[in-house]
This record gives sequence, C-alpha cells and structure tokens, in this order.
Amino acid sequence: MSPRLILFPVPLSQAPGSPADVMPARNIELLSEVRHFVVENLRSARRFLRSAIPDFPIDDCTFSELNRHTRPEDIAAMLEPMSRGFDMGVISEAGCPAVADPGADVVALAQRKGYEVVPLVGPSSILMALMASGFNGQSFAFAGYLPVDDAARASRLKEMQRRIIREGQTQIFIETPYRNNRLIASLCETLPSDMLLCVASDITGPDQSIVTLPIARWRGRKYNYDKIPTIFLLHKN
Amino acid sequence: MSPRLILFPVPLSQAPGSPADVMPARNIELLSEVRHFVVENLRSARRFLRSAIPDFPIDDCTFSELNRHTRPEDIAAMLEPMSRGFDMGVISEAGCPAVADPGADVVALAQRKGYEVVPLVGPSSILMALMASGFNGQSFAFAGYLPVDDAARASRLKEMQRRIIREGQTQIFIETPYRNNRLIASLCETLPSDMLLCVASDITGPDQSIVTLPIARWRGRKYNYDKIPTIFLLHKN
Repeated sequence: MSPRLILFPVPLSQAPGSPADVMPARNIELLSEVRHFVVENLRSARRFLRSAIPDFPIDDCTFSELNRHTRPEDIAAMLEPMSRGFDMGVISEAGCPAVADPGADVVALAQRKGYEVVPLVGPSSILMALMASGFNGQSFAFAGYLPVDDAARASRLKEMQRRIIREGQTQIFIETPYRNNRLIASLCETLPSDMLLCVASDITGPDQSIVTLPIARWRGRKYNYDKIPTIFLLHKN
Repeated sequence: MSPRLILFPVPLSQAPGSPADVMPARNIELLSEVRHFVVENLRSARRFLRSAIPDFPIDDCTFSELNRHTRPEDIAAMLEPMSRGFDMGVISEAGCPAVADPGADVVALAQRKGYEVVPLVGPSSILMALMASGFNGQSFAFAGYLPVDDAARASRLKEMQRRIIREGQTQIFIETPYRNNRLIASLCETLPSDMLLCVASDITGPDQSIVTLPIARWRGRKYNYDKIPTIFLLHKN
C-alpha cells in the first residue's frame, strides 16, 4: 500500500457535542490508524483526537505544526513519515483542512511528490452557508477577508457587485469576528437597497442563524454578531 | 417549535457502502423525524431514504419534485407543510442540496418566508477537490460548466487565467462526463505549460483519483476520465 495524506475535518464550533455529530463514522475509523500528523495547532489537535477517540495513543504519535509562523523551508521535512510508508493526517484548527488555512502548503507538497491525497467529509462553514443562503450555487466565489483599508475595501465591493450583476456569481467573504457588526453597518451604507445579504453565524453551533434579507431590511434590523464566527454572502434579488 | 427546512446531503458516488460512510450519524437521526420532502428526483430520493433507514415509512411521506422541468409558479406551494408547522427536508440527486442544483430555489423561498434553514454536513465534490488540490483555499471560484461554444469557452478560460494571476483565485469548473478527456486535451493545448491543473475524479468512490500536475506534465500523460464525474481546478505554480 502506498502512503496516503488524509485530510481530517474537525468540528467548527466550540459547542458541546461529539465530533460524531458533524462527521461520518468512517473518519473516526481512519483516524484510529494514523500516528503521524501535520496540525495547525498542537493543543487543539490533541483535544480533537481525545474527543474523537478517548483512548487515542497520543504519546505514540508525531506532530508537526504548520501555521502562519512556519518557515517555508521547514515544510519539506513534514512528510518524512510518508517516505517511510506511513499514512499521515492533516488537522486544522476548525473545519476542513487546506481551505482557508496553511494546510494547503503540505497538500501541495504531497501532490508534487505524487502521494495519494484523501479528503474526508466534514463541516465547512463556507459551503453550509452557501447551501442555506438560497443563492446561486452554480457560480460562486469565496474571497477570504475583505481589505482593511477603506478605499481598497470599497473598490473590492464594487468589483463584487459587478460580478453579481454580470456573471450571477454569489460573493462570499468573512471578517474578523469582533468587526462583524461594523461590516454589516458598512454594507448597509454602501450597497443598493435591493441587493440580498445573507449573514450565516455560528454554523453547527448552538446559536446557528442563517438569515437572507435585502439590504433595505438589514438597515432597519437589530442584530448582534459581535465575536461570533460569521460568513457573509451577497447576491442579487 | 417553528418549522425548519433541513438540507440533507446524499452520497456522491454509486459506490457500494452505506450513507454512514459519508455523513454524520446526526443526519440520519434528523432524517428519521421528517415526513415532507422536496426532492430533485423522486426515485433516487426514495432509494436514499431506504438505504439510510431501511424501515423508513416512505408511504407516509409527501414528496414534491423540484428540477429543471419544474415551473417557477409551482415552487411556492412546495413549502405548504411548513405553514402547518412541519419540518421539511431537501434532497438532491447527489451531494449537498442547493449547491449547483435547483434546490436553491426552494431555499430562497424559505428565506423570503422567514423560515429557519438548517444545512447539514455531507460530501461536496467541489470542496473535497479543493481540499485535496493543494491550491489556494483562501480565494476560489466555482464556475459550473464552461461554455460549449469554442470562442466563448476560450474567452472564459482567458478570464480565469487573469483571475489566477492577478487575484491568486483558484478556478474550479466541471464538464459533462463524456467530454472530460476532450476538455483536458483542449486545456493542454491552450493553457501555459507551467499552469497547474488538478483533475479530481470519482470523489468518495472506489476509483477516487485527485492529481495535480503542471500542464506540461498533463500533455505527456495517459489518462481516461471518460464518463466519470470529475472536477477541474486551475492555479498558478
């Protein structure tokens, strides 16, 4: 058997509840056989392993941390256990690894080396927000964070509006959670009244809320998404 | 309790294996309580219900079919059971409902009516292909099918290249499965040698294969993706 790089999703929310609520039993079965990991955060990865498999032999495992502090030249050595024939796992801080986190670098390395890469099913706030928004899922774009600078942000939002109108492309983005309320206020100021805004908050968590309304209705609405992980989606009416 | 519109993913592949391999146990628990459904295809939805819950009381259920043959004016009546307080489920032919299928129309209606919409975790070939490609997951766009017309297709591919170079945006698209091989040949002819193409095929199925290589290497490679559901991703090296 040639070694596999297996991408293990983890729960999104800090909510009580077991990993089995948001991932297939097969993930846990595969996890039980892996002893070598690339993780975004060592502490949260260990917490996940213990919650998924209470008697997981963590002391018999190797872990490499891959996050924004990692030097690019240190990534190459992380797949060394695969060169000895071992499967490896990638675990990010939340959700699906290698989407909007540094795990993509080690996946790219595995692809260059010709290793098999196996993605598993798990919670993705981007995808679940899109499903529940009612917006066009045949054409959509995720842009990560909007620019912080006011002029750059305004120009990015203009370009997004063009792509919504011309291409029917749903626009998806995120914000640092403590700025969520300010972002909605600023969208209400700058976007046309009939544009639809979906705010998808605490997905899979106890306060999950996914609300699609025209900008005109958001203007008069009371909301508080302060410090709650939230995804924003725009589309036309 | 106010009624919920619950979005139930189904398996992607016709592979043997139980739904539990690709979805959380919680999905099946929720499913066991729902009796009113909007489905993309009646036959495949019934097959899914029976495979997920062998003694599911299908004869006690109501089903509305929502697909490309549905008249827009018929969609409004589909949520009638919710107006009587019942939860409803949405089930598409494959993967996550309301992403690249007509289920989005009934989700949009539920949002307009102010109903709670609950997306569940399940297999998404778009997201799983992105995870395993090694490409940028902080900025990506899914475009559905490329245009069939040669000139329109060439111009769309030019625009995708611009967005890869200028925005670092991963480009994701699909093709009618019997044209997969022809599409790869045409990408090999028209794209620069150093551009990276990921071909992600039969995701979650027995012949799953997710391969990222520069166009130069695809040119010399033997492959056959004829009639196999496949996702294509482009990014720069």
